[in-house]
Amino acid sequence: MNTDRRIVILTEGQFSNHTSKTANGVIRFIPEQVVAIIDSTKAGKTTAEVIGAGGDIPVVASLEEALPYEPTALLIGIAPPGGMLPDSFKDVIRQAVENRLDILNGLHTFLGDDRELAALAERFEVRIVDYRRPPKQLQIASMRWKERRAKVVLGVGIDANIGKMSTAIALWKDFQSRGYRADFIATGQTGMVIADKGISVDALPSDFVSGAIEDMVMDSAKDHDIIFVEGQGSLVHQGYSAVAVGIMHGAMPDAMILSLEANRQQNDFDMPYPDVWDVIRLHKDMISVYRPTVMAGISLVTFGLDEEAALEGIKNTERDTGLPTTDPLRFGARPLSDAILARLSIST
Amino acid sequence: MNTDRRIVILTEGQFSNHTSKTANGVIRFIPEQVVAIIDSTKAGKTTAEVIGAGGDIPVVASLEEALPYEPTALLIGIAPPGGMLPDSFKDVIRQAVENRLDILNGLHTFLGDDRELAALAERFEVRIVDYRRPPKQLQIASMRWKERRAKVVLGVGIDANIGKMSTAIALWKDFQSRGYRADFIATGQTGMVIADKGISVDALPSDFVSGAIEDMVMDSAKDHDIIFVEGQGSLVHQGYSAVAVGIMHGAMPDAMILSLEANRQQNDFDMPYPDVWDVIRLHKDMISVYRPTVMAGISLVTFGLDEEAALEGIKNTERDTGLPTTDPLRFGARPLSDAILARLSIST
Repeated sequence: MNTDRRIVILTEGQFSNHTSKTANGVIRFIPEQVVAIIDSTKAGKTTAEVIGAGGDIPVVASLEEALPYEPTALLIGIAPPGGMLPDSFKDVIRQAVENRLDILNGLHTFLGDDRELAALAERFEVRIVDYRRPPKQLQIASMRWKERRAKVVLGVGIDANIGKMSTAIALWKDFQSRGYRADFIATGQTGMVIADKGISVDALPSDFVSGAIEDMVMDSAKDHDIIFVEGQGSLVHQGYSAVAVGIMHGAMPDAMILSLEANRQQNDFDMPYPDVWDVIRLHKDMISVYRPTVMAGISLVTFGLDEEAALEGIKNTERDTGLPTTDPLRFGARPLSDAILARLSIST
Repeated sequence: MNTDRRIVILTEGQFSNHTSKTANGVIRFIPEQVVAIIDSTKAGKTTAEVIGAGGDIPVVASLEEALPYEPTALLIGIAPPGGMLPDSFKDVIRQAVENRLDILNGLHTFLGDDRELAALAERFEVRIVDYRRPPKQLQIASMRWKERRAKVVLGVGIDANIGKMSTAIALWKDFQSRGYRADFIATGQTGMVIADKGISVDALPSDFVSGAIEDMVMDSAKDHDIIFVEGQGSLVHQGYSAVAVGIMHGAMPDAMILSLEANRQQNDFDMPYPDVWDVIRLHKDMISVYRPTVMAGISLVTFGLDEEAALEGIKNTERDTGLPTTDPLRFGARPLSDAILARLSIST
């Protein structure tokens, strides 16, 4: 993690719990790196007042007002329809480059391909990071997990957008705090901003997804003992199962943690969730034909429930699945990291 | 199928059982559309003499010598290392366009992007078909199989390159011969040349594989009652499982046919095949969480075995799996089409 970064996030007109997902993830997980949010419609508030996270991080009206906080990077925190940036946003980006800020961009539109911006970045010696740009060297996976000594834990889910990234990051931080050489492999833009590395895998040609994950895992395994991989999609979501399997078979995890949501019954395609036991068995079977693995625990989203209902949901899920369960964002990741340690032997 | 095409195939220097896979598939499945092969190193022979298929189709030394056979299209039947065409090949392609031949190209290099060729094609009013070019409109799958009335049969395999395409085509032709409104959906270049439509799915961003398949299936379902989808890769091949799942969940098949090879024990990654029962169960489970499905039969590759050993292999596979089994290329697809009809109700 690049802990010297001081990030200002551009979310003009869209800073809220529903419309600025990348910004919100970054504020939630690395608030210490965020110095200000630009959104003239919310200026004067704090991030805690707008999205309930990040504490006193100020919302300001313009880049100019953010500069006194001495940012080193501007993160594009919005996704305009169609992915094209309006001219007013490009003005802010230009101004940021001229003030020697790196540009961090998760849009499908690559800012580094804009000749004017690229030339400006070269002149002011700053980086334009297009997180969605696929790596130049792509290859298919090739069974290199057989030579791996580091343990790999994959976040999987009964659905897309159900806390897989948050769970992996919470576990990564908990293992670091316990003294383990732990790493986090990001597979989407928000995770990439947080980890300052990774690959946005859903943009890769499908043949290369597992190879790209295997590459990152083998690279990380050189100097880490436990690696948390951010899952994407779900085996049981028709729209995203191919990506989920590509990540799964690239990571070839020693253990998985399954993300569920208390009280959610169906996905955004109105498909009722299958029985959780069938989902657990399917995930294990998809790995077990290659290698042994375990489902080590359940990460339960309890957002929106009061504390009593949340604890009740956790208890019920534990009873129904027989697996250690918690909401790592609300109650800490410790029960899940204990469960992983109980199933895998990892050295500190 | 475009049965008016008269195809000449350019395989210069590489026409053989091992090096011209696309050419060989086309010769094997639509010999009636192939008028000549260009390969000066094999000129004077017939395709049957070189690859054991296609009967008397002549191999000639140049495009000039192929013109008397009145071809309407030139198929690039080779894949030069790195995908770049040498200048001598471009000369042949230019010459073909000037003689009003369509150009059919399965390489990763898109010939339609060559300005000179594109201009020439416009002038002579011919098509340049780049099979690997992704469609412009891409979307994720969206559960449209629920509205589908046509039955879908997917070819799956314990491995890549094990006869999934051949099996699907053999079944398609058999159902057509029995009077059914049957269709074939190609997902790789060779199948695309044969069907004159389809999408090379391994080049699509992984998010869009199942959506592209679902699109083609729903389109085909308008005027067909049974649709055979060409599978790619395998759930149990680490390199290609993501593509296999994308196709599977795009097709959401009513039935599957599993391709095995008699006496093959491991894949090209030296991974021993899992037990065939586990493979069958895994394929069914991956669909069953969404919808009912069946594994209707086994397609067994017996290439290289004498007839007695081939029949013995088929008998043993039938006994081991409890499923109707045959080698459709060698003994005809009828046992498998009977098995599909016994499991699915389809109108003629």
